[in-house]
Amino acid sequence: MQLSCPAPILQHETVQMAHGAGGRLSQELTARVFMPHLGNPVLDQLDDQARFEAEPGRIAFTTDTYVVSPIFFPGGNIGDLAVNGTVNDLAVGGAVPRYLSAGFVLEEGLPLADLERIVASMAEAARKAGVVIACGDTKVVQKGQCDRIFINTSGVGFIPPGRDVSCRNLRPGDAVLLSGTIGDHGMAILTTREGLSFQSRIRSDSAALNGMIADLLVVAPNVHAMRDPTRGGVAATLNELANSSSVGIELDEAAIPVREEVRGAAELLGIDPLTVANEGKVLIIVPAAEADAALAAMRAHEHGKEAAIVGKVVEEHPGMVVMRTPFGSRRIVEMPLGEQLPRIC
Amino acid sequence: MQLSCPAPILQHETVQMAHGAGGRLSQELTARVFMPHLGNPVLDQLDDQARFEAEPGRIAFTTDTYVVSPIFFPGGNIGDLAVNGTVNDLAVGGAVPRYLSAGFVLEEGLPLADLERIVASMAEAARKAGVVIACGDTKVVQKGQCDRIFINTSGVGFIPPGRDVSCRNLRPGDAVLLSGTIGDHGMAILTTREGLSFQSRIRSDSAALNGMIADLLVVAPNVHAMRDPTRGGVAATLNELANSSSVGIELDEAAIPVREEVRGAAELLGIDPLTVANEGKVLIIVPAAEADAALAAMRAHEHGKEAAIVGKVVEEHPGMVVMRTPFGSRRIVEMPLGEQLPRIC
Repeated sequence: MQLSCPAPILQHETVQMAHGAGGRLSQELTARVFMPHLGNPVLDQLDDQARFEAEPGRIAFTTDTYVVSPIFFPGGNIGDLAVNGTVNDLAVGGAVPRYLSAGFVLEEGLPLADLERIVASMAEAARKAGVVIACGDTKVVQKGQCDRIFINTSGVGFIPPGRDVSCRNLRPGDAVLLSGTIGDHGMAILTTREGLSFQSRIRSDSAALNGMIADLLVVAPNVHAMRDPTRGGVAATLNELANSSSVGIELDEAAIPVREEVRGAAELLGIDPLTVANEGKVLIIVPAAEADAALAAMRAHEHGKEAAIVGKVVEEHPGMVVMRTPFGSRRIVEMPLGEQLPRIC
Repeated sequence: MQLSCPAPILQHETVQMAHGAGGRLSQELTARVFMPHLGNPVLDQLDDQARFEAEPGRIAFTTDTYVVSPIFFPGGNIGDLAVNGTVNDLAVGGAVPRYLSAGFVLEEGLPLADLERIVASMAEAARKAGVVIACGDTKVVQKGQCDRIFINTSGVGFIPPGRDVSCRNLRPGDAVLLSGTIGDHGMAILTTREGLSFQSRIRSDSAALNGMIADLLVVAPNVHAMRDPTRGGVAATLNELANSSSVGIELDEAAIPVREEVRGAAELLGIDPLTVANEGKVLIIVPAAEADAALAAMRAHEHGKEAAIVGKVVEEHPGMVVMRTPFGSRRIVEMPLGEQLPRIC
């Protein structure tokens, strides 16, 4: 973002093409909408790149673009989602999230009030997560050439020396922990989109998990793997983990927390909650000896009150996730094909 | 990007909604289109975040989203543009660019052959610039909800200890150098879009400048500021620099290189080439004592053959850029308002 801050020159109520062209109107957008909320000593450097000191350990770097529709939904909006999602992608790698970038694509005609509300949510989410929006960029496209607003957030964090959390580290005997109920985010989006009556009661779980994960790593320092089950849900994430580590995973259906209204909406829509996106949940794979300590740490945190041990890593059926049902039968949890839930994040 | 690589399951010729949903088709897209071109030891880690060692010095971090239209144009496409632009944003801060992220928003129905051509260009541009695509993400939106493809690239580099290049460092007496002809990228896009006959002869200057800048810094280690004049062109960039450092800038119109066909097209379209985007040029502000050495270093490089000293920093008219014309008169070079050139990058 090329930032400098003259006084606002022109006033508009909606995003104009010129707001993205790098001239005076771009400066106005920056000065009027972005800097009042996002301004901080790193962003205020106003150069083409943010600069900061390295911290001990390896660097973690991640990126995600958010195209969720609708952009406002029960429990959040595209702005806090974009911050929380990237914070979580860093945290599940064992990194301490520190710096985020924000890249906006805006549709001509988007009300500036909507943009400001989104930017304010990003600032608030960043504050809660303890990260800094370090650099940004804004592009504007003609009406009809994007759907209101897309946001890319990339993130930089630091992995403390000696920490090794990876999707390739699962070992038979490990416990599989889940930090809370599944499907809340995806079902909040879908029921809002479909105008279902569940809508008012199902809220996105969008939240930054780095605080809870930091607490957990103190008492369970040998965590093997962490993953936030976003797109594709728990089903996709566990299949990927089983695949990457060439192990099997056995789930206990009765242990997996699902809110009643989420279960109801999912049944109505013919969707398996295991395949639905979460935005404030994490799967933790930990040696059995540390499972109870990890569980207690999660439950002590506001984002892990309903945490549970939901399964274990096994030697059998490598690459495959199998669920034990409450009736004693077993079914394969397949990698979802991915056609049911577009634009969930 | 959640990456793992089973064998392709289904074959499509165009992007499907499910390619962005985190399931099996997402994996197929990764395995079939992204990894063959972009695969490297960092990306191959297949975790939710890339991990790499810090290098000496401060960290530089930048982001840019590319929405250029058309996506293929003379001299490049949106893919190499996205790599070169972010490499340049790091390099002009004095950083050595090292790692890039790639965030794709794809429109349902985009031919996979087009995507593959773009991804191959990104890989080739990254190879030329000596950077690694370290992490990525792909989202798909319904037909009509984005214009074919948008790409965000964020970048991480390292600023060697002791280097201080900033838009606030300009001092009266400094020389202003430009690495070559102006307006090539923007006019290549505009003439292609308008179907003008100039189109065949005007090519984008899209190029990574980190190699030339590294050579230059060896012989001119006290460079005060560098900026790539992208959106808003040389006019916007110099106005920002003058503003940030509270100095005046005096330009010599006769010294500014402009290709004949660019000048002709600009005249036809009623556009000042000074306000047109460049994607392979850099403005260097350097103490007068190092100007000749810096110029020689640029001219010795393939991307700086037409480099020139185009002006100087003055104490007068702080915050203002003034151009001396070949006829001896002077005119103010204003910050462009920004309405003429949408979606140039």
